[in-house]
Amino acid sequence: RHYKASSLLRQTLVGRTSVSSSLNCASAPQIILVHSQNRSYSKLNQDDVNHFKGILNKPEVAVIEDLEGTGSSSELSGYNTDWLNKLKGNSKLALRPSSTEEVSQILKYCNSRHLAVVPQGGNTGLVGGSVPLDDEIVLSLNRMNNIIGFDKNYSILKTQAGVVLEKLIEYLEQFGYMPPVDLGARGSCHIGGNLATNAGGIKLLKYNSLHANTIGLTAVLPDGTILDNMRALRKDNTGYHLKHLFIGSEGTLGVITEAAILCPKIPAAHNVALFALDNFDKVEEVLRASKDYLSENLTAIEFFDSESNNILKDHTKHRNPLGYSHNYYMVVEVSNFDNTSTAEENTKIIEDKFFGLFEKISTVIEDGVIAQDSSQREAIWNCRERIVEGFFKEGMTFKYDFSLPIDKFPVFLDKIRDKLGDHARTGGYGHIGDGNIHVNASIKGYDNLKLFKELQKELEPWVFSLVEDYEGSISAEHGIGSFKAPYFELNKSNEMVSVMKQIKGVLDPNGIMNPHKLFD
Amino acid sequence: RHYKASSLLRQTLVGRTSVSSSLNCASAPQIILVHSQNRSYSKLNQDDVNHFKGILNKPEVAVIEDLEGTGSSSELSGYNTDWLNKLKGNSKLALRPSSTEEVSQILKYCNSRHLAVVPQGGNTGLVGGSVPLDDEIVLSLNRMNNIIGFDKNYSILKTQAGVVLEKLIEYLEQFGYMPPVDLGARGSCHIGGNLATNAGGIKLLKYNSLHANTIGLTAVLPDGTILDNMRALRKDNTGYHLKHLFIGSEGTLGVITEAAILCPKIPAAHNVALFALDNFDKVEEVLRASKDYLSENLTAIEFFDSESNNILKDHTKHRNPLGYSHNYYMVVEVSNFDNTSTAEENTKIIEDKFFGLFEKISTVIEDGVIAQDSSQREAIWNCRERIVEGFFKEGMTFKYDFSLPIDKFPVFLDKIRDKLGDHARTGGYGHIGDGNIHVNASIKGYDNLKLFKELQKELEPWVFSLVEDYEGSISAEHGIGSFKAPYFELNKSNEMVSVMKQIKGVLDPNGIMNPHKLFD
Ligand SMILES: Cc1cc2nc3c(=O)[nH]c(=O)nc-3n(C[C@H](O)[C@H](O)[C@H](O)COP(=O)(O)OP(=O)(O)OC[C@H]3O[C@@H](n4cnc5c(N)ncnc54)[C@H](O)[C@@H]3O)c2cc1C
Ligand SMILES: Cc1cc2nc3c(=O)[nH]c(=O)nc-3n(C[C@H](O)[C@H](O)[C@H](O)COP(=O)(O)OP(=O)(O)OC[C@H]3O[C@@H](n4cnc5c(N)ncnc54)[C@H](O)[C@@H]3O)c2cc1C
Repeated sequence: RHYKASSLLRQTLVGRTSVSSSLNCASAPQIILVHSQNRSYSKLNQDDVNHFKGILNKPEVAVIEDLEGTGSSSELSGYNTDWLNKLKGNSKLALRPSSTEEVSQILKYCNSRHLAVVPQGGNTGLVGGSVPLDDEIVLSLNRMNNIIGFDKNYSILKTQAGVVLEKLIEYLEQFGYMPPVDLGARGSCHIGGNLATNAGGIKLLKYNSLHANTIGLTAVLPDGTILDNMRALRKDNTGYHLKHLFIGSEGTLGVITEAAILCPKIPAAHNVALFALDNFDKVEEVLRASKDYLSENLTAIEFFDSESNNILKDHTKHRNPLGYSHNYYMVVEVSNFDNTSTAEENTKIIEDKFFGLFEKISTVIEDGVIAQDSSQREAIWNCRERIVEGFFKEGMTFKYDFSLPIDKFPVFLDKIRDKLGDHARTGGYGHIGDGNIHVNASIKGYDNLKLFKELQKELEPWVFSLVEDYEGSISAEHGIGSFKAPYFELNKSNEMVSVMKQIKGVLDPNGIMNPHKLFD
Repeated sequence: RHYKASSLLRQTLVGRTSVSSSLNCASAPQIILVHSQNRSYSKLNQDDVNHFKGILNKPEVAVIEDLEGTGSSSELSGYNTDWLNKLKGNSKLALRPSSTEEVSQILKYCNSRHLAVVPQGGNTGLVGGSVPLDDEIVLSLNRMNNIIGFDKNYSILKTQAGVVLEKLIEYLEQFGYMPPVDLGARGSCHIGGNLATNAGGIKLLKYNSLHANTIGLTAVLPDGTILDNMRALRKDNTGYHLKHLFIGSEGTLGVITEAAILCPKIPAAHNVALFALDNFDKVEEVLRASKDYLSENLTAIEFFDSESNNILKDHTKHRNPLGYSHNYYMVVEVSNFDNTSTAEENTKIIEDKFFGLFEKISTVIEDGVIAQDSSQREAIWNCRERIVEGFFKEGMTFKYDFSLPIDKFPVFLDKIRDKLGDHARTGGYGHIGDGNIHVNASIKGYDNLKLFKELQKELEPWVFSLVEDYEGSISAEHGIGSFKAPYFELNKSNEMVSVMKQIKGVLDPNGIMNPHKLFD
């Protein structure tokens, strides 16, 4: 059963499939969550629409449904529906400004008219935060897609907020740089959406968070005030560091329109390995050994369990090269930053790193494979990244995104499995290096809304209290949105929540920004 | 004139002296800046003192001057005087709580009684922020000096705010880790003071800021509310990220009492080199080459000019091994993170890095030296770090700490020299890798207050407007304090300042926290 490092290097990956980076679950039926609106906003009227037309004087800037309610725009339905297809809003108007100034004019008007607004980026959010719950105006950033530039001397990218992450990846490549954030939704999500949710993703372990890497930010407040903090200085200690208020604020304080982001160099070389393990203690051992031994060269470390792996097999064409008989799998990425090495030296350096690691963990792992080329690298990454797609195809899915003490991952999953019994398939996967576990539990198909709701009652708020008992976080990275808003206060002290509400009150006194998101 | 790499390695450093890590300028006479108090607070009375004695029931917890004004405690004078000896407050009471709970009770009482409070850490701040301007109560953190612990699995240090930075360095060493921040004041400054000023220092280039590395933080608001955000999770996206409001808030929003800090591993090995250059274009060339070639292995890069170097010679026993004939000097630190290498391998790896760099810059530099052992490393670092001491010994000093486009450093210094003429010796040095220049200008001695004030009128606000013209920051890292408070708004938009004031108003409605600091 002992693993031989040398054989690994020769093993060839099979079943590689390419995957579009922007998944789409639009085939799933909608679960419309009815939300009681306990605050009243104005109703949009034709004067409002005319006013907006005056601001945005191009035909393509607004998607408007007939206000009389006859006829409906199918395009508008995209703005009203979330990625998970769990929510369908009733907005009649999606505005698509192209500049900070236009955003300012829109918000100022909405604020004075008490019209509620939902900022929307790539609409890939997983917590029901990016779509209207009722008839809020959608303020889409998708025309604010200009990359302003990259300053190589300071490694700082300046960009409008509506640029798709993948575009930034492509743009920065010519300079040998990359964004400090990356995630499975890269083909659709905006950098502005990443900022608004403080997205984590696979690079956080190495490159730290968007709080760490955001050097400048422009945000527009509900009253139209433009907070321009785009003087992209590496260091600036003049007053409160306001940009951090907007990072992770989920569109409830204002609209992020521009950002300056510190970008790391693309490593000279990198490679990934996939390991199979038979129990969680061993997963922890590989985690420790990888951190210890690979140190600065460890650029990502992820895990998934057997049920996640089975879901991958059952619902995607993608195949796990290590098969389906193991309890746990880990993806380990190693990079070499020495950009003066030749290609061969690089291969050698990374091979040496992996061999060194293998030596330490050879008695721990059941099996392993190391990628031989970039398509195999992608194939290994797909084993991890396409799990989310698999669960959706299985059926209606409970999606949780917790921070927990790492050693509690298995017992936590067991408790959820106990609760759900045979009604759902439950898997755990995620950013283990950061203590971040994604728990997905899918019932079969999309037609048993009744069962889903019954199970939901079983799970919530119980599961959030459980997280609290373990001193974790009910959202490691996806945020609170509308789905977790009722439970948010379970996981934060009254004092913290109260200060957050005071700040919301100061910046958005009329409460027009993304109502019922974050705070219930 | 061309430099030969091999000779460098053999050159021995001379004139190494040890330097106490906590400098002290207490010999300088005091320049008492009279500050017009335009807000009225209550006067401390005996009831107040008795109340505090009730909270802090130990004799050593408070330093109290006779309230009748007869007799004065020399200990209290330390709390009233800033590190630069420019300010002398008139506080009668320094309270020294040992727990978050005690801080809460103190603030709650002060808030209800409208007694103003100055939080004080190690009192090494350079902008007149840490001492009373009038008779504010000093709330010193110096008894909150418990290190709570270090969790190696997550690389997270938990500590009370009053721990001296050097203690944390020593403590973490046993685990093979270090704080992500380091600066010349390490022997006196507190981690809480570092957080309150968002201190930068020599490691920021590699390890990023305290915003990046602070995982948890407890702060006490003026009304006694404890915001406990110490559940030290690597990732937590539940609501606004309030901790960032306190990082860099200079004691104006509340008191930081505990923190959880992500700490990097001590590199397996590191070494430093000192280069001499004859013009600033070449400094920039070395900067670019170092960043490019050394990449992740570059852990610090600093510069100083010839006047700073002369000041070092004239006022400290420390000698620059490259002499005094060059226009610019640079300190470059290289680290190796591969902690599986042997000591010899390490030496070799780092030597190779330096040789590789030398090859790229050999026609650029005038001279260079690489440290042969740890005492030579310290000696090279001292060339840079003891400059600040030199200027103080020269005389009364204007100290500025700017972010500027790097290529503007020389012209900026020239303009200041033009202004000051022969009245002062002006030098520039600092964290060039971050675009951060420290400008010091000293007049001779400490007895010509008149000249100092005349020159100050010439310099300020002119110099701050100049920074604004260059789109820089009037404080890269030291903060605003009281010295720059009148000029703060020159360098931030009205909109930014207005939002900051609104937040101050919400968290500190009675304005008891550190009055006239940050905001004039
Ligand atoms: C396949 C897949 C994989 C994912 N993987 C990860 C992952 O690894 N890590 C992770 O953290 N998340 C992940 N997510 C979740 C999601 O992609 C991220 O939250 C992403 O950052 C959202 O960006 P977006 O542009 O789609 O924002 P949206 O979904 O449009 O909006 C998200 C929230 O931000 C607000 N918002 C958007 N843009 C702005 C703006 N410019 N100004 C103000 N508010 C704004 C919205 O109002 C909403 O509340 C994943 C999602 C999918 C579908
Ligand atoms: C020799 C020398 C070198 C230096 N080098 C650098 C450098 O490289 N980079 C740099 O950034 N700075 C540098 N400084 C400036 C100074 O050391 C830093 O600002 C340091 O972080 C201050 O820490 P302190 O504990 O001494 O704080 P103090 O001086 O006591 O206080 C500074 C400010 O923070 C507030 N404060 C302190 N503790 C708390 C708390 N617990 N809660 C709330 N507010 C609090 C005070 O009210 C005050 O406004 C240097 C100073 C010296 C003397």
